[in-house]
Amino acid sequence: MWILGVADGHTKRVNSLPAAPQRMFVSDNAAGAHPLVLEALTRANSGHALAYGQDAYTARAQTKFCELFGADVVTKFVYGGTGANVMALANMLRPAEAVVCTSWSHIHVDETGSPERILGAKLIDIASTDAKLRPEDLLSVAHLIGSQHHAQPAVVSLTQATELGTLYTAAEVRAVCDAAHEMGMLVHMDGARIANATAALGGTRAALRSFTIDAGVDVLSFGGTKAGAVFGEAVVFLNTAIGGRADYIRKQVTQLHSKMRFISAQYEALLTDDLFIDLGARANSAATRLFDATRTIKSLNLASPPEVNSLFPTIQDPVKTELQRWSFFWDWDTALRQVRWMTAWDVEPIDVDAFVAGLKTVID
Amino acid sequence: MWILGVADGHTKRVNSLPAAPQRMFVSDNAAGAHPLVLEALTRANSGHALAYGQDAYTARAQTKFCELFGADVVTKFVYGGTGANVMALANMLRPAEAVVCTSWSHIHVDETGSPERILGAKLIDIASTDAKLRPEDLLSVAHLIGSQHHAQPAVVSLTQATELGTLYTAAEVRAVCDAAHEMGMLVHMDGARIANATAALGGTRAALRSFTIDAGVDVLSFGGTKAGAVFGEAVVFLNTAIGGRADYIRKQVTQLHSKMRFISAQYEALLTDDLFIDLGARANSAATRLFDATRTIKSLNLASPPEVNSLFPTIQDPVKTELQRWSFFWDWDTALRQVRWMTAWDVEPIDVDAFVAGLKTVID
Amino acid sequence: MWILGVADGHTKRVNSLPAAPQRMFVSDNAAGAHPLVLEALTRANSGHALAYGQDAYTARAQTKFCELFGADVVTKFVYGGTGANVMALANMLRPAEAVVCTSWSHIHVDETGSPERILGAKLIDIASTDAKLRPEDLLSVAHLIGSQHHAQPAVVSLTQATELGTLYTAAEVRAVCDAAHEMGMLVHMDGARIANATAALGGTRAALRSFTIDAGVDVLSFGGTKAGAVFGEAVVFLNTAIGGRADYIRKQVTQLHSKMRFISAQYEALLTDDLFIDLGARANSAATRLFDATRTIKSLNLASPPEVNSLFPTIQDPVKTELQRWSFFWDWDTALRQVRWMTAWDVEPIDVDAFVAGLKTVID
Amino acid sequence: MWILGVADGHTKRVNSLPAAPQRMFVSDNAAGAHPLVLEALTRANSGHALAYGQDAYTARAQTKFCELFGADVVTKFVYGGTGANVMALANMLRPAEAVVCTSWSHIHVDETGSPERILGAKLIDIASTDAKLRPEDLLSVAHLIGSQHHAQPAVVSLTQATELGTLYTAAEVRAVCDAAHEMGMLVHMDGARIANATAALGGTRAALRSFTIDAGVDVLSFGGTKAGAVFGEAVVFLNTAIGGRADYIRKQVTQLHSKMRFISAQYEALLTDDLFIDLGARANSAATRLFDATRTIKSLNLASPPEVNSLFPTIQDPVKTELQRWSFFWDWDTALRQVRWMTAWDVEPIDVDAFVAGLKTVID
Repeated sequence: MWILGVADGHTKRVNSLPAAPQRMFVSDNAAGAHPLVLEALTRANSGHALAYGQDAYTARAQTKFCELFGADVVTKFVYGGTGANVMALANMLRPAEAVVCTSWSHIHVDETGSPERILGAKLIDIASTDAKLRPEDLLSVAHLIGSQHHAQPAVVSLTQATELGTLYTAAEVRAVCDAAHEMGMLVHMDGARIANATAALGGTRAALRSFTIDAGVDVLSFGGTKAGAVFGEAVVFLNTAIGGRADYIRKQVTQLHSKMRFISAQYEALLTDDLFIDLGARANSAATRLFDATRTIKSLNLASPPEVNSLFPTIQDPVKTELQRWSFFWDWDTALRQVRWMTAWDVEPIDVDAFVAGLKTVID
Repeated sequence: MWILGVADGHTKRVNSLPAAPQRMFVSDNAAGAHPLVLEALTRANSGHALAYGQDAYTARAQTKFCELFGADVVTKFVYGGTGANVMALANMLRPAEAVVCTSWSHIHVDETGSPERILGAKLIDIASTDAKLRPEDLLSVAHLIGSQHHAQPAVVSLTQATELGTLYTAAEVRAVCDAAHEMGMLVHMDGARIANATAALGGTRAALRSFTIDAGVDVLSFGGTKAGAVFGEAVVFLNTAIGGRADYIRKQVTQLHSKMRFISAQYEALLTDDLFIDLGARANSAATRLFDATRTIKSLNLASPPEVNSLFPTIQDPVKTELQRWSFFWDWDTALRQVRWMTAWDVEPIDVDAFVAGLKTVID
Repeated sequence: MWILGVADGHTKRVNSLPAAPQRMFVSDNAAGAHPLVLEALTRANSGHALAYGQDAYTARAQTKFCELFGADVVTKFVYGGTGANVMALANMLRPAEAVVCTSWSHIHVDETGSPERILGAKLIDIASTDAKLRPEDLLSVAHLIGSQHHAQPAVVSLTQATELGTLYTAAEVRAVCDAAHEMGMLVHMDGARIANATAALGGTRAALRSFTIDAGVDVLSFGGTKAGAVFGEAVVFLNTAIGGRADYIRKQVTQLHSKMRFISAQYEALLTDDLFIDLGARANSAATRLFDATRTIKSLNLASPPEVNSLFPTIQDPVKTELQRWSFFWDWDTALRQVRWMTAWDVEPIDVDAFVAGLKTVID
Repeated sequence: MWILGVADGHTKRVNSLPAAPQRMFVSDNAAGAHPLVLEALTRANSGHALAYGQDAYTARAQTKFCELFGADVVTKFVYGGTGANVMALANMLRPAEAVVCTSWSHIHVDETGSPERILGAKLIDIASTDAKLRPEDLLSVAHLIGSQHHAQPAVVSLTQATELGTLYTAAEVRAVCDAAHEMGMLVHMDGARIANATAALGGTRAALRSFTIDAGVDVLSFGGTKAGAVFGEAVVFLNTAIGGRADYIRKQVTQLHSKMRFISAQYEALLTDDLFIDLGARANSAATRLFDATRTIKSLNLASPPEVNSLFPTIQDPVKTELQRWSFFWDWDTALRQVRWMTAWDVEPIDVDAFVAGLKTVID
């Protein structure tokens, strides 16, 4: 149920469209929670537990993160994605320092200036056609280092999978981490879609470790909400030399939940039998199915298969608006006439097929 | 289940204590969610919904808030209590302004400097033996107004019920609001325990309105978590001249949940048949039952019955520690040997009776 | 006297250079104060005066600004250039808003993240080959407006003369102001080198007004230090609907000088007989003389005459370092082998000639 | 010359007052600069010097600070007093930390919330009848340490001489420093009036060292403006383990002056032959002379001689207003009918005598 897409006079062609798919292709946060996650949350709703993380669910979920990464990582649960990023960076930055990121990065584009306001830090955004940073990008800020007139580059923030649906290989992450560390910088990874990335890069714990802890990432925002949770994200200090003051900072940036067990229990479920990887894989494969069924429609300009769960086809009006009224999706780059189709963990083949069927009714 | 209170050598007298109550007296956030709330959350987990509040649950919950206050109030849902307060105040403050509050206030004492960091604003804390502000307290800051050397008092923040478990009458709130407005200030109310306050002050919507919108409160943090929710708070702009930029500010202070329907659905449940008032009443009456059963124990120094859901008895060691190991509660003022007993919405008479039974085993 | 450029082993060719010029070409802040300015400051050092601006010097200097702009502008004196910009912007921004500027702008590049830290605001930097913003640049951020996920563009900040030594015509400023105002944005002008700009664009008060108040600029950082002062800048609210809370904000951003008369008296001197324009003209003409004397040296790649007081020639090592040791100037873009020669108000023809003479000794 | 005190209808009794003193008793920032300081500033106005501290004046002034404290201290010059305090604290604080100070402290009362805004830190203000902190005051915040719900006390800020004109002995400072360091806290000293304090506590470098570096103070705001400068303050890192990033932070908090030599040269003059101590002594002795001449006027309630340069007598209207119109001074505590008389370095015995003569005309 959604409140956009109200009908208006232009309904003629809409009426000719088949039944809309049950699940939309609007975003991975349009989906609800996976049944196992909701079940875990429900099970946690039993009796009393001390607040603010002094409960058994939290202890168990934190242990699960240690097992996941095969190391004594420190995990702090927070409410949301922007909060996770701000909380991670707040632990990594000193005054007069800056964060290097791409000009596509969520922290730069989609967080309403939260990093600037709460961190008081500059973001140095670097142009990138594929939303990925490379070691040479860091060299481009090297001249700032040591001059009192410039905010000092201190943290590199990568997004995996990126905001454009691309992926870093483990070797690429490692190259950036090595370059950053050599320059005295730390590395943050925004893993709001780390489930999708893990699924795409091998689908195993070893794969996850290869592009995070083994590659040298210092602090990781480990996404839960897009991976099938009701709410809740995790900030994982892979480099435990950082984060010693994380509890204070989490509360200060408004990200400490009192009834913490409700976040922890969800993560326990997501990490059990690597459910999160499975859910990432489902979203990815729905996107692949969608690509396979539409790649031959030339006007969409779908050059290459999705690496994770999004496609950026071009569609012109009035067809675009008509389709959006039928089964909503977001515009992406109006100048390029690009829209975004994004699959969630719960999108079924039948949804893809229904979407494609509608599509083909109006696009040749 | 909780991880404090592990047994150690001093267990002799503990062994003589009866079975601990099933629910603790440690805090109202030790309780889980009310079944109807969890049911609503579960029901909301169906199909797709647009994120960030563009869903039907949110529209319905916002309408319910309008009905609750009998006015076209503007309601924005956020993650947590500190976030609600910071979000509310961020909409009310201009640069170089200050918030007047008591030295007991949650924003001043218990939010790890979140208001100072995120708002960049000074809190002017005023001593108060009962955690309540009075019009004359505002006069005490009047001399700051108009001098460029002082942060300008611009918002008064009241807590209802207060951090000491006291209550403002509707007339008292109105008196503060009138004084504040006359001085050109706005009024925020931290209603983390507004359910308890409403129950105690009449238990009706009329009662709630009398000490909020009718009394002149401009912006209200309307507590959900302590009132039986899994997570989620509401910021209610009773004065709709404020809050025109609330959506931007909510995202900027990291308090915008993507899967908003899961907060909204809970509030829909809490406001249906005034469930929140009922839950507040249950917590209050458990505290009253506890008071009635212990008022005659002189050493506890329980002078007067609780106004809402907390008692602050004095207990000395080693008895105090022994009791805490048996059924945990927090120290309050160690210099005064005060502890805090706080009841949650789910505490049953049988819990109170079990707690009192244990108490009487070790205190004469 | 300066502490860089100490001699080392590589002095052979240096010895062959003629006597270095008395004044360097390193920056306009390498110069001291103009005698009339220092005299005014000295004269102000007489007897007692109320602090914080309640003195006659300040009242007179403020009146002089009204006369300069032919309007009842509001002028607030501050300590320094970064402070002036931050103070100006702090009066113009609301929470969750952003400043649009070029990627060359001082606020973006050279203020060590001061705007981000003190304003808590995002700077949206726009690439520009000549360090100037155009109306179409504003259109490129229009898509951000109205979405809660993005910091809202609210202020455009122009620099006049720009960091690359270019100038906006009055018509160009007006075009940006018109576009900004139409989009609901305000316009700030960083006029650290407004003296040079005024001199270059006509050298009259009418010229100054044409590209500031008449063009629609709302708030102006009016540079004093580079224009011959000891210290002190002015923030001029040309649009007096803004700045009503400027006194509080100035103190809050640490820019309120107690012995204000010492800044005011300098400005009184700078505005008397338009001394600041004369000083700007002197710096500009020294740069022009330098250009005229070196334009034929091909390797310098000096395509066009300076608009104000800086040149960006290319010089290769070892000659570059040799020259810097002889008469220091800063590197500009090491990748392009560009350096910056900048003239101050006190550079005399004899300095230019001496510099050129040395130059020609080592560059053919 | 000052703009308050304009004549109105009530001038009858004023006319009967003798000639007002040439210097007022309004504040130590009503005075100008000492001739030797202005001479040094004028001498520094010769030729070119590299900006931002890369000049010989700055190097020499920094050396003079090392000699003053007999140690390799690190000194950074800034514009003003609030800036000095904010800059010092910005080097000492980490996220989620707080500053402990008295409720009289300049940072808490008189800086318009600058610390809160720029530092994002909480100030924990402690009531104190004499504006001094004591070790036991630190114990009162010890319970906050280690709890994630509270901003962590990390820096103690003392003012010497205090805002009430009282002094810490060297032993008292040491006791606070010892207690602070034992609790893991650092100590900042706001020495806006350190010249007066040094003069009063012995008048020698040894005296100065005894209550600063020898007592364990970590970072010192060393006042210049009140001690006879035109502008400029110094932040002295006595504990050089702090301040490694001071250059970046100074620029970020808008306190880096480009033409630094003009601050440095003034400090060179102030530290030559301990001029600053002499000037502090002059202000102090003027206050003592004023006290001696008025101590017997009972209605003034001047219980004890001034420790430095201020007196807080009680005077009732209409006499108070009449005197203020004649020779202005500030109200202090209107409820107590207290005013403040404060002497500057340039107040002469003849000024004191003239002031007392006028006083005795209207007060018996």
